Amino acid sequence: MGGDHAPAAPLSGAAHFSLKPECPRLVLVGDARLIAEILGREPHDPDRISVVDAPQFVAMDADPKTALDALPDASVAVAARLVKEGRADALVSAGNTGGVILACARTWERLAGVPRAALGAVYPTEVRHGEKNDPFSLILDAGLTLDVDADTLVAFAIMGSAYAARIAKNPRPRVGLLSNGSEAKKGPAAVVEANARLSRRSDLNFIGNVEGLDIPKGTADVVVTGGFTGNIVLKMLEGVAETMQSLVRTAADASLLNKAGLMMLLPALKELKKTTDWQQYGGAPVLGFEHVCIKAHGRSSPRAIKNAIKVACRAIDTQLVDAIRTGLSTSH
Amino acid sequence: MGGDHAPAAPLSGAAHFSLKPECPRLVLVGDARLIAEILGREPHDPDRISVVDAPQFVAMDADPKTALDALPDASVAVAARLVKEGRADALVSAGNTGGVILACARTWERLAGVPRAALGAVYPTEVRHGEKNDPFSLILDAGLTLDVDADTLVAFAIMGSAYAARIAKNPRPRVGLLSNGSEAKKGPAAVVEANARLSRRSDLNFIGNVEGLDIPKGTADVVVTGGFTGNIVLKMLEGVAETMQSLVRTAADASLLNKAGLMMLLPALKELKKTTDWQQYGGAPVLGFEHVCIKAHGRSSPRAIKNAIKVACRAIDTQLVDAIRTGLSTSH
Repeated sequence: MGGDHAPAAPLSGAAHFSLKPECPRLVLVGDARLIAEILGREPHDPDRISVVDAPQFVAMDADPKTALDALPDASVAVAARLVKEGRADALVSAGNTGGVILACARTWERLAGVPRAALGAVYPTEVRHGEKNDPFSLILDAGLTLDVDADTLVAFAIMGSAYAARIAKNPRPRVGLLSNGSEAKKGPAAVVEANARLSRRSDLNFIGNVEGLDIPKGTADVVVTGGFTGNIVLKMLEGVAETMQSLVRTAADASLLNKAGLMMLLPALKELKKTTDWQQYGGAPVLGFEHVCIKAHGRSSPRAIKNAIKVACRAIDTQLVDAIRTGLSTSH
Repeated sequence: MGGDHAPAAPLSGAAHFSLKPECPRLVLVGDARLIAEILGREPHDPDRISVVDAPQFVAMDADPKTALDALPDASVAVAARLVKEGRADALVSAGNTGGVILACARTWERLAGVPRAALGAVYPTEVRHGEKNDPFSLILDAGLTLDVDADTLVAFAIMGSAYAARIAKNPRPRVGLLSNGSEAKKGPAAVVEANARLSRRSDLNFIGNVEGLDIPKGTADVVVTGGFTGNIVLKMLEGVAETMQSLVRTAADASLLNKAGLMMLLPALKELKKTTDWQQYGGAPVLGFEHVCIKAHGRSSPRAIKNAIKVACRAIDTQLVDAIRTGLSTSH
């Protein structure tokens, strides 16, 4: 029921994916009448799709706490319970981000050793990463946990590394701790302490502190930071992309020479846009719970939904949660 | 004696500027023998230049504290004392940033109501600012004060606004508080508290919280944040510029069509580079002391040095420190 194009886009993504051999069994949680109506129009494999009726939902612009307090059987809460009860293995949603995370937090146990959960996000970088040679780095936290202590930063590093190793097929992802200087002693106390502790771990490919300069470059495959800075970094990258597009438009309008030059660059610009398309990635992981949750972007198309489901499958197949649990238990 | 091209670049900038009618009297602090030798080769007005011999200096890569402890008569410390004693009105340096700031902190009084000093920095934005229509916003702190409380953020806002009003000729600069959401309640406790207090002030043009998205856009003329986030933001902008240049090079090498397109865009790219050239700005203010200090970039050319001196003159002529003092005394 969630997402800017819901329920059509999520259902269409699920329906089309159900026809592929690699599709898992899908449990669609939402208004059963509406789901039946939309599925009736979409080719799908009925043997792979079951429906759980949950007509109430957290609206995209609702305050998560108010909405979930008022609607304990909202679709996202029902879906989280299905996972807790073992009737589903992972939760995928394109709905209200705060609602998804709060539903997880209220229903699922946090892993031992995780002081606070994290929301990961991928962003395009100059260099490529992992076996798939993909142009994305993972940054966490994206805005869930604003104030972080050293314990939290260490847990984020362990979780981000385990996720990147599995999802980006990057067996030894380079993990960097975001700070205001590359030296180990640079940064607020929590960052300095986290650097010292991460440096002692042999199970992580910890490359030390990384700086703002390293973010667009992609020096680290996993960038660890608190949610305040992580949110600002991610929104800045969005803003830079918007500013670039606006500069290109202004340049094209300013002279015919500019316009001709940009026309010639069109294939290169399109290729750049294609390789940095977040839709190929699918979703942002909510990390730190006993179960897998993939938050697809609110703007998700059917293709992005399909990719989010694939990411969730891969997290389950590669036993992401077990790997994180092991990493956390060898914390010292 | 400071800067990557010192002493030649600072001396050449000072020498050439001394021939202009608007040049103030300059006190050059450094190795008198070396200064005489270099000035001998540069056209300059000897009536406007005096020299104070201070042959020791803080090296660009030195640890500021170690260096200043060992060299109490380093040129930057001598210069700060000249200002304190009223023998000069402002300090301009392209030297070791930490050394400049520590020399100020050890020699000058902090203004009442300023818990911690701030280093301002300008960066290019999409929109133009102030009467000069210049493409820069000011962000503070740039990395001097990592952890900030509400008092510090409010003081930064007052100082940044007073500076932008005078230097960017922007009588009512829009002041934004960087956070992870535009709503007043978004952010860590210090940011929420600072937002509430800034909202009550009629002497500031406070536009509320701004987000990462607003940084490249230039929504605010003055962006207020702690030094940890400010440093990461500024280095990210540098990194984005480097990544863009590298993408352009890669595109030019990849195909003749790309190369031709980029050739056509060359005038527009050059214009963009020119308008966003930090050298036209001159320097970064160290704010929060009883005196004016302008820190020119380590890479400063003679032209950048001249512009840093001009900024210092303007800060004195427009009574920047008095304006900040007044703003701070009406804090509640």
